[in-house]
This record gives sequence, C-alpha cells and structure tokens, in this order.
Amino acid sequence: MPKFENPVIKELIEKYRRLWALNHAMSLMGWDEETYMPSKGVEERAVATAELRALYQELLLSDQFVSLVERAKAQENLNDYERGVVRVVDRELRIARKVPPSLTYEMAKTSSEAFMAWSEAKRRSDFSAFKPYLQKLIDLNKQMAEKLGYEEVPYDALLDLYEEGLRTRDVKAVFDVLGPGLRGLLDKVVSDGYYTVPSPLEEAKYQEEAMRRVNQRVLELLKFPQDRARLDVSPHPFTTNMGVNDVRITTRYEGFDFKRSLFSVVHEFGHATYELQVDPELAMTPIGSGVSLGVHEGQSRFWENVIGRSRAFASLIKPVLDQELGLTKGISEDDLYRYFATVRPSLIRTEADEVTYNLHILLRFELEQLMINGEVKVDELPEMWNDESEKLIGVRPKNDAEGILQDVHWAHGTIGYFPTYTLGNIVASMMYFAFSSRVGDIYSYVTRGDFDTVKSFLRDLVHKYGATYAPKELLRRQLGEEYNAQRLLDYLSSKYLKH
Amino acid sequence: MPKFENPVIKELIEKYRRLWALNHAMSLMGWDEETYMPSKGVEERAVATAELRALYQELLLSDQFVSLVERAKAQENLNDYERGVVRVVDRELRIARKVPPSLTYEMAKTSSEAFMAWSEAKRRSDFSAFKPYLQKLIDLNKQMAEKLGYEEVPYDALLDLYEEGLRTRDVKAVFDVLGPGLRGLLDKVVSDGYYTVPSPLEEAKYQEEAMRRVNQRVLELLKFPQDRARLDVSPHPFTTNMGVNDVRITTRYEGFDFKRSLFSVVHEFGHATYELQVDPELAMTPIGSGVSLGVHEGQSRFWENVIGRSRAFASLIKPVLDQELGLTKGISEDDLYRYFATVRPSLIRTEADEVTYNLHILLRFELEQLMINGEVKVDELPEMWNDESEKLIGVRPKNDAEGILQDVHWAHGTIGYFPTYTLGNIVASMMYFAFSSRVGDIYSYVTRGDFDTVKSFLRDLVHKYGATYAPKELLRRQLGEEYNAQRLLDYLSSKYLKH
Repeated sequence: MPKFENPVIKELIEKYRRLWALNHAMSLMGWDEETYMPSKGVEERAVATAELRALYQELLLSDQFVSLVERAKAQENLNDYERGVVRVVDRELRIARKVPPSLTYEMAKTSSEAFMAWSEAKRRSDFSAFKPYLQKLIDLNKQMAEKLGYEEVPYDALLDLYEEGLRTRDVKAVFDVLGPGLRGLLDKVVSDGYYTVPSPLEEAKYQEEAMRRVNQRVLELLKFPQDRARLDVSPHPFTTNMGVNDVRITTRYEGFDFKRSLFSVVHEFGHATYELQVDPELAMTPIGSGVSLGVHEGQSRFWENVIGRSRAFASLIKPVLDQELGLTKGISEDDLYRYFATVRPSLIRTEADEVTYNLHILLRFELEQLMINGEVKVDELPEMWNDESEKLIGVRPKNDAEGILQDVHWAHGTIGYFPTYTLGNIVASMMYFAFSSRVGDIYSYVTRGDFDTVKSFLRDLVHKYGATYAPKELLRRQLGEEYNAQRLLDYLSSKYLKH
Repeated sequence: MPKFENPVIKELIEKYRRLWALNHAMSLMGWDEETYMPSKGVEERAVATAELRALYQELLLSDQFVSLVERAKAQENLNDYERGVVRVVDRELRIARKVPPSLTYEMAKTSSEAFMAWSEAKRRSDFSAFKPYLQKLIDLNKQMAEKLGYEEVPYDALLDLYEEGLRTRDVKAVFDVLGPGLRGLLDKVVSDGYYTVPSPLEEAKYQEEAMRRVNQRVLELLKFPQDRARLDVSPHPFTTNMGVNDVRITTRYEGFDFKRSLFSVVHEFGHATYELQVDPELAMTPIGSGVSLGVHEGQSRFWENVIGRSRAFASLIKPVLDQELGLTKGISEDDLYRYFATVRPSLIRTEADEVTYNLHILLRFELEQLMINGEVKVDELPEMWNDESEKLIGVRPKNDAEGILQDVHWAHGTIGYFPTYTLGNIVASMMYFAFSSRVGDIYSYVTRGDFDTVKSFLRDLVHKYGATYAPKELLRRQLGEEYNAQRLLDYLSSKYLKH
C-alpha cells in the first residue's frame, strides 16, 4: 500500500522536493568543506552557503508554500506517514516564522565572531577574551526563546529546537535518576579498579595507513554498504546524509591511542545506519531522515558503546588489529576489552568513558539553565564550571581550556543541545534491553559477526520510520516508554559491576 | 580603481550572486558525481540537480531579475567590465527566453535515453540501435536552432550556443585553410618517418601509485596552487571551477601508455590555470570565469601540446619519470620526446595527435552541417563517416564503434560543439607566437621550469579578463586577430617538419 495517498499531501511532498534539493546541495557543500575543499575556497563557499540558505528560507516562507501547508493541516483521515509529513513541515515553518530574520542574522554574525574569539581564547586558555561574546550569545538565545515561546521556562524553547518536544522537566527527571546513580556507580567502579587500569595502548603510536586499513576492515565486518556510503577524513568526525542512498561518515587519525579513530568510525557508522535504513519510500520527503538529535545519538551510541566497547567486539576485531596494526599482538582479549571500556574520571567530555560521560552533560545542563532561565554573571561561569566538575566528576580543571572553553557548542551560539547526548545514551540502553528481550543476547550475535540481524532489528524498531513519529511518540510506540534513565543505569551496572 | 561603479550594475551583480551560488552548488554536485559519490546515490543526485536547474531558470526568468537586466542594458557610459556583465547576463537571458521549457525538457529526456542507447550500441558496435535517437536529437536541435534564430544557416544558432558569436562561415574559413594544409603536412610527416615510429612506452604497463606520484610532482613543477586547486580521479578527465579560489581537475589511470594520464593532467591544468588567474575582483560575477569553450580549449591545448609535447618538457620531467615510474630509464630524451609527440593517422579522435586531430573535427563539422542545414538520411551517416575518415585521415573504421559511435557528444544531444576543439588548437598556436614575439623563446622558459613567467604572460594576455570581452573581441584586442588557422599550420610545420 502506498504511504502517501492524500492528494494535498502528495502535492506538498512534490513542492517540498525543491527544499530537499537545496538541503542536499548544502549537505554536500558542508561535507566537502570538511574533507576535500582547497583551503582558500572557504570564502566563496561561505557566500554560496549564505545565498542558498537565504533562498531556502524564502521558498519555505513563500505564500504559495505556506498556504499549501495550511491546506495540508486541514486534511482529515491522514495516515501516520501523511501526518508525519504535516508535523515536520509545519514545525519547520512555525520556527522559521517566529524567528525574525534580523535575529537569525545577528545570531549567525555573532556566532561567527564568537567562534574565532573562542578558538583564540582556548588556545591561550583565557576565558576573558571569549566572555563578551558568550554574554551576547546568551542574550540572543534568550531573545530566541521569547520569540519561539514556551509553557514553563525559556530554556524549554531552546531544548525543543534540538529535540522536538523536549522540556526542561524531562531533562531534570533524567538527571534526578542519573546524577546520584552514576556517582554511586562510578565510586564502585573506581574502588574495584578492574576498569580503571591504564593500557599501554593509550600511548602507542600507529601508522595512519595501517589504521585506515583497520577502519575499512571493521566497516566490512559491520557490512557498511560501500555503494551507498563512504568513509573520509576530517578534523572532527561527523555524518552527512545526502539521501537514503548517499550517506557519508568521517574519522580522524591522530597517530596514537587508536581506539579514538576506531570508535569515531563505529559511532558515525551508527548514525549512518539510521539514515541508510529509512524506508526508501520516504526518500526526499520531509520525513525521509532521522527524527531528532537524541534518537540519532541513540543509534551512534548503541554501535559505539553497546556493541563497540564490548568483550565480544574486542574478540571479533582483534585478528584485524593484530594483522594490520600489530600493536595488539601481545595484548590479551581481556586487556583489549578493558582498553576499549576504560572508566576514569577525566576533564574532557569528548574523551570521557560511558560512566562519567553523562556527568559532563549534567554539568552543562545546570549551567545552561542558569544562563537562560536564571540570573548568572558570565564572570562567575568558569569558577562554577570548575566547582561542578569537582563535585560531579571528581576532577578540577587547572585552566579554562580544559574547563569552560573545552567545547565549541556555546561558541557556535548553541545552547540546549548538550542534553541530546544523554538522551542518546539512554535510547541506546533502551534499545539494548529491547534487543535482549525480543531477540536474545546481543553479544552472541556480535561474536558471530551477525550484524545483519542487529541492523534488521534496528530498522524495524526505529530506522525505517524516519521522522514519521515525533521522538517521544516513536519511543512510546516502539520501546514502550520515553527517555527512561534507569535503563542506562541498569545497562551500565550490568556491564561495569562485573568482569 | 574599482571595476564596478555604476549602481545598477552593482545591483545586478549582487542579485546575480544567488544564481552564482546555485551554479557553485551544481558544479560541486557534478564534480562529486564523477569522483566520490557512492554509486547508488545517482538517482537522488539526478533529482536534486533537476530541481536546482529548474529553480535557477525560474530565478533567471523572474520579472524582478529580467527588469533589472533591462535597466542595466539602458545604462550609458559603462566601462568594459560593466559592459561585459550586461553582455553575459543578457545573452544567457536571451537564450533562456527563446527556448521553451517543453523543448528543454524534451531535449533532456531524449538525451538521457539516447545516452543509454548509445552506450549499448557502442558496446555492440551496432549503429542501428542508436539511429532512432540520433534522428530525434537532430530534429530537436533543428527546432532549437529555429527558436534561437540565425542570420545565415540554422547550424549558426547551435555554434553560437557553444562559442559566442561563432558562425558556420568562420568555421568554414578555418577548415578551408586547415583541410589541405594538414593533409599536406601529414603526408610529409609520414613520409619522413621521424615522428611516426612507435615507442615501446605505448605498451608499457605502470603502477597507479607510481603514476599518481608522477602527476603530483609534475603539478609541483607547474606550480599548481594546492591551496586553491586539487587533482582527483574520474573515468573521463575534466576541470570544474567552483570559484576563483576553488578549481579542481581530474585524470584517469588506465595502467598503460602513461602519457595518456600525464597529458590529461597537463591539459586540465591548462583549463584550471585560466580560471585560477581570472582577476579576483570578478569573482562571483557573471564575468568571473573563462569566456568560451574555444578560448578555454586554447589554454588547455597550449599547456598540453605547445608546452607538454615538447622536447624541453620531456627533458624537464624525465628525472621525475625515471625516479617514480622507472619505465623511461633506458630511453633517450629524444625518444621520450617522440613518444610525447608521435604523429600517426588513427581512428579515434581522443587518441589523435596534434597533426591529425583537427581532421577528425573537420569530419564531424561536415556531418553536423548536413544534419542541421541539409538533408541527410540518418541511415547514410555511418558510411559517410567511414568514407570521410578514409579521405581525410587515411584510415577506414572497420565498425561503428570505432567510427560514428566513438564520441559521446551527439548522444548527449550536443551538435555544434566539436568545432570549439579546433578553435582551441588555433588559439593555442596564436598564443605561442604571441609569446615568441613579445617575450622570447618559450622553450627556454620550459627548460628552466620557469612557468611563473609563462603563467603571468597568459594572465595578462587572456586569463585576467574572464568573460569581460566576447571571444572574438578578446582575440582581436589581445592577439590582434580572430581565429587564424594559418598560425596553427605554422606552429605545426615548425614543430613537425624538423627534428
């Protein structure tokens, strides 16, 4: 049965294709900028991107398109897919109409200046150079929240921007469980000591060419479809999708501690697999891609953490590592697994392990709420950061570079994004338990390299729907509950309290 | 002094930037399709491209843009650059308005079907499978010519599409000189025998990795600016420019007869150098890129033939070849030069040497005129092709694959394009003589690897103007004459009648 039958919806999808095409082009331009573009091409690329973005907004807000969306909203007896199309387009339009172009412009301009100030401030580890920009970006984000509107607190409006339907109270409820739970778990793991032993592999240097072969062979084991996807190199790993048959991931090669390159690949593979498994019938429609950052991060974390940082995966890929890198030859499977699954309180979020990671997010969530809902002097933020870090994670930054300046997000003007990382970790654990109860022990599949079964399960559970259902609705329908933080604690406890 | 001062022209340039941005995106999409795109991405890419192309047409033909162009045309006292902007935009608009969308659509659809039929027909060497498509494409091109309008013969309208201002009588005048001149030259070169000796290098196999290093090192010798340009691999070599600071070339690696890969690089380097040397002030404007196919081919042929296939260039790069490939170690510089500059009547245009190349074009020019101006039964074309080949080049195709089916152009619906290749060869020889008389013996510069002097000469002669002047006007202003075929004969005679 065709997914789209209502003639108004069909017309909407057809008209939307032009917006899709612009997104397609901008995705490619973004990918190219990080991978192959000659360095001096950056200025012309910036102009081209700004022009296409403005054109996109004009087409979206054109009378013709707006009235078509209004007609679509008035349709009755729509099926789930058709309702999904209306929901997604209406949401995009609503946001675009509420935020005045002057604010968007101001935000883009300030972010661009702020990013440069932040880069320099981080290099010199001096928050004061970034301070005025952060103040301005906080003000702009507050204005944004007012324009977007909210029911309870302004921060809600920003959360919703990154995760449809997410409210501050949802995130609070999550961290009410995770905060104490993770603190307790961390204490036990640290005092046990099994997972905290440093591995010599952390310092071991590798040849880029050899590591490239490792990553390619791991992707072959994972059955990454090379005719629909590709792996490239970029300073910061990411996934781009140009369509259901063209999804691209990147990794980086730092030359040491090879798991960083490896797990970037496995993480982005998880993002890519979501996009690659969206029902092809939804291609080029408003619902033809992953529904939200949180659900997306659930997919990447599932592959990176649940599958990748497991004993079964370590055993599976050890022959590849032994053959191509050589570094692991004298290392037992058990020690390789502990290298993958090390737990150790540390300062930098992007290098954090599964147990401490969400404490880094809790820290940012608390500060972001103060920035947007409360009254906080920007001056006080670095000290608050350091205090919170000590309290939550047990380590205190010695300077701003490893403290408040470590992440790029705020410099990009992005406030309200961080919580989606924790949602992702929760979703990944929910999917882990769903697999266990509906299919069986996932590690028996990993051991056999039977990733087809895993992928097919994920496709039917989440991927194939694309953005048909809003995130919370998708989770309720397919997993029986929304963001259930206890699942994450259970998964982590079952993993790190035994060995 | 700023190049653009008239306020209406400045407004036009600003509005045009959106069209430029769409072209930028489509260029990148085209480049990506030939280089890195996963194979199954092709369908979504085709849809995205079609949407952006349609959007481009709508913006170009919008009342707002058209009336701005009309206002620009009414301006007085414009400088050369401003007049160039008006000329280029008005020409594009005129063509877009004359050709009805239905005809454009029909042409695109038929070409796409014809291309598939041609591929299969060529594989089976059976013209009959392609025949009905060629007939239809000829009819469509005739319709196109009628819509575009012409003064003398319909074929003029098509020539003008590919080379602004070119008429059938121009091309006839060129071949009236080249036809007999090249035939006579070829006979002498063949009977002399020096340049016709086959080289063992034609059959010699190479390792792709080694050849990649050769190409990179040759580009370094040529001072290819790696921060503004790049070399990639594609089935058919080409150049794309995304802007004055982002120009990309490709080559291919067939594994034998290494000069094919090498001279593709040098040829495309010539195209790229034109774009890279356009005055940066013209960036993102309608005149910010090369003016025409013929002038462009002049640049590529200058580097490929005048510079690349010279004794001086052979000597210059021999150490690189010896070191990286090894194949040339036992070969004298003289024999290497003869391998580069071999002359031998052959069947395939793309593999033809400097002397016979334009005879291949003459053959196509004669057939195209018959197709468009005259009455010809499509049935008769293969036999006509073979007869002409025998008469002009002295070799007769044994089948359609090496005869009428060899080129893709007609299958793409492109009739009137081939003559620009010969114009390119003529322009290259004109530039060669200009360098000789104004600077000195070019080969003394090549011998020293002083390509900065050569590039700087070409920049001031042609490149920096972009599309400021129409092709014929540019040639008259900068070289004192239009397409002067005698120059090509003189250049070839001076090269191939001595040794």
